[in-house]
Amino acid sequence: MAIDERTLIETVFAPLAAGAPGAFGLRDDAALLACSAHKDHIVTLDTLVEGVHFRKTDPPRTIAKKALRLNISDLTAKGAEPFAWFLSLALPAATTHGWVREFAAGLAEDQALYGLALHGGDTVVSPLGVVISVTMVGRCPAGTSVRRCGARSGDLVYVSGTIGDGALGLLTQSEEGEAAGLKGLSAAEAQVLGERYLLPNPPVKLAGPIRAHAHAAMDISDGLVNDLGLLCTASGVGARVDIDAVPLSKLARRALAADPFRLTDILAGGDDYEMLAAVRPGEAGAFEKAAANAVVAVSRIGVFAGEAHEVRFFDAGGETVNLPRSTFLHF
Amino acid sequence: MAIDERTLIETVFAPLAAGAPGAFGLRDDAALLACSAHKDHIVTLDTLVEGVHFRKTDPPRTIAKKALRLNISDLTAKGAEPFAWFLSLALPAATTHGWVREFAAGLAEDQALYGLALHGGDTVVSPLGVVISVTMVGRCPAGTSVRRCGARSGDLVYVSGTIGDGALGLLTQSEEGEAAGLKGLSAAEAQVLGERYLLPNPPVKLAGPIRAHAHAAMDISDGLVNDLGLLCTASGVGARVDIDAVPLSKLARRALAADPFRLTDILAGGDDYEMLAAVRPGEAGAFEKAAANAVVAVSRIGVFAGEAHEVRFFDAGGETVNLPRSTFLHF
Repeated sequence: MAIDERTLIETVFAPLAAGAPGAFGLRDDAALLACSAHKDHIVTLDTLVEGVHFRKTDPPRTIAKKALRLNISDLTAKGAEPFAWFLSLALPAATTHGWVREFAAGLAEDQALYGLALHGGDTVVSPLGVVISVTMVGRCPAGTSVRRCGARSGDLVYVSGTIGDGALGLLTQSEEGEAAGLKGLSAAEAQVLGERYLLPNPPVKLAGPIRAHAHAAMDISDGLVNDLGLLCTASGVGARVDIDAVPLSKLARRALAADPFRLTDILAGGDDYEMLAAVRPGEAGAFEKAAANAVVAVSRIGVFAGEAHEVRFFDAGGETVNLPRSTFLHF
Repeated sequence: MAIDERTLIETVFAPLAAGAPGAFGLRDDAALLACSAHKDHIVTLDTLVEGVHFRKTDPPRTIAKKALRLNISDLTAKGAEPFAWFLSLALPAATTHGWVREFAAGLAEDQALYGLALHGGDTVVSPLGVVISVTMVGRCPAGTSVRRCGARSGDLVYVSGTIGDGALGLLTQSEEGEAAGLKGLSAAEAQVLGERYLLPNPPVKLAGPIRAHAHAAMDISDGLVNDLGLLCTASGVGARVDIDAVPLSKLARRALAADPFRLTDILAGGDDYEMLAAVRPGEAGAFEKAAANAVVAVSRIGVFAGEAHEVRFFDAGGETVNLPRSTFLHF
C-alpha cells in the first residue's frame, strides 16, 4: 500500500470520528470518555484473524461490520448501549486502497446504524495477514449491567431471534466462498443462511429489556448448548430446555426436516449472535412486552433449575437429547 | 499449543485480573469501569506485530512489558493515571507454554509496578505470527487531561529524562538479537542502550505535574524532531530548541562525541517514550518542583514561538541545524 499511516488516518478514519468530541478527530494520542455518576462504562474486545475468523476473499465491508457487531452483541447482552470504539488494524503492505475504502465504508454504515463513533486506535503494517481487533465501550445506568452469573432457580430461559441460522450458514460456505447446497434448501435459500453467518444482526434494542428484567444474560456466539452451559456454570444453577420451543427460521426448519442430524448444528453450532437471558419469574410478561415494543422477537425455551451440571435438552416426547458442546475452540 | 482458550484464561490471565472488581475474574463477556462525575476516562491503544515491532527472538517478558509501557507512556502525557487494560493476543498454534508463561510474568511484574489490572480481552489463534494489541484506560480529574493542541506562543518546551538512548539502542540491535558495537562505547555500554530500546521506562509520575502546569503534551515515540513538529502543527505555533539543552545520558554523550553524525539518531530517531510538554510561562518553577517531588528529571530545552512550520533547532553557536523528521512510518 502506497499510503502511510497518517494519510490513512486523515482520509479514511478521521471521518469516522466526526461528531465525537472526545475522539479529537483522531489527532491526539488518546481519547476522552466523559464520565457521569449515573452511568457505567462497559467494555468488550473481539479480535478477528484472516484465515481463522474470516477469509481473505470475504468482502471487506462485511468483515468490518462483523468486527463491530460481535462487540455490539456482547454489550447488548450486558444491557449496555454501545457508543465508542477503538480499532487495531494490522494490514499487509500490499493491501489495496480499494480494500481499505470498502472496509471503511462498512464501518461507516454500521456506525450510522448503531450510533457509534470511532474514538482511536492503531494502524500497523503486518507482513503476515490482516488482524482486526475492536475494543468497544457501552453505557448503561449505573449498577444495572447484567452478568453471566446471576441466574437463579426458577428464572426463565429466553432467547432472541432464531437459533441455528449462522451455523447452517457456515455449512454453506465453501473454502472458495461459493455457496454450497444444504439438503432441503435451494441454492438461493442456502445463500440467505450464508449471509446470516457472514453478517450477524445482534438485537441491540434488547439491551433495555434485558437490564430491566434479566438476572443474567450473555450472547450466543459458540452455540446455545455451549453458552447456556457457561451461563449455568457461572450462575451455579442448571437448566431444562424444551427443544421444540427453540425458535427456528423457516429455512432452518426446512433444513432440519430434510436432515434430522442438523439439530446438532442448530443447537450447538454457534454464530447466532442472539441473546440468552435468565428472566426473573413473574417478569416474563413485562419482558415480552418490552421486547415487543423494541420490535425484537423473544422466545421462552425453558427454565433454570437443578445443579449447574444439569443442563438438559428435551424433545417433544419428553426424552433427554444428548447434544455435544461446540467443538470450536480458539486453540 | 496444546491448551485451549478457556484454560489459558483461567490459568494464565485470570490471576492478572484479581483484585479488580469490574474485571469479574475474566469470567464474563465484558468489563465494568465504574464512572464518577469527578473523573474522566482516557483511552489509548497500541498494537505490536511480530517481525515489525519486536523480533520472534525477543524475550516474551520484555515484549509484554513494552506492550504495556507504550500505552502507559501515551496516558502519562495526557495527564492520566492508567488503571485498567484489555489484551488482544493472537498467537500461532505452535506457541509454547513457556512463551506464554514468560509473557504473563512480564505482564504481572508491570501490573504490580504501575498499579494496573487486566480487565478483559480476546485470545485467538493466529496462523501468521504473534500480534499483540493493548487498549489501556487511565483516569484523571474531570476536565484536566492535556492534549497535543494547546501549546501557545511563550510556553516553554520541556522534555523528561534523556533523549536518544532508545534510538542509539536500536542501532545496537542486530537481526539476530546480538549486541552490535557503537563507536565510543564498549560492548557492555552498547548493551545498556539496547535494553533501553527494548524496554522503555515512561515517567508515569509526571502525569500530575503535566496536568497541573502544561498547556499541551505528548510522549516522544517517533523522535523529538518529529513529535515536536506534530505538537506544533496541532497547536498552530512554532518552536525554537537549543540543542545543547537537550538532556543526554552519559552514554549518548560519549557516542555523540565519538561520532557527531549520531546527533540525527538522537534527536530524530525515536523510541524515547519520554514526555514533551508545553509548560505555561510563569509556571516553570512550579513544574520543575513538582517533577522533582515526583523524582522525574525534566529539562527546559526551548520555547514555543512563531508559525507552526517554524520548528527550529539551534546549536551552541546559534546556528540552525537541519534535522530530518523520523522516517519510520508504519506503512
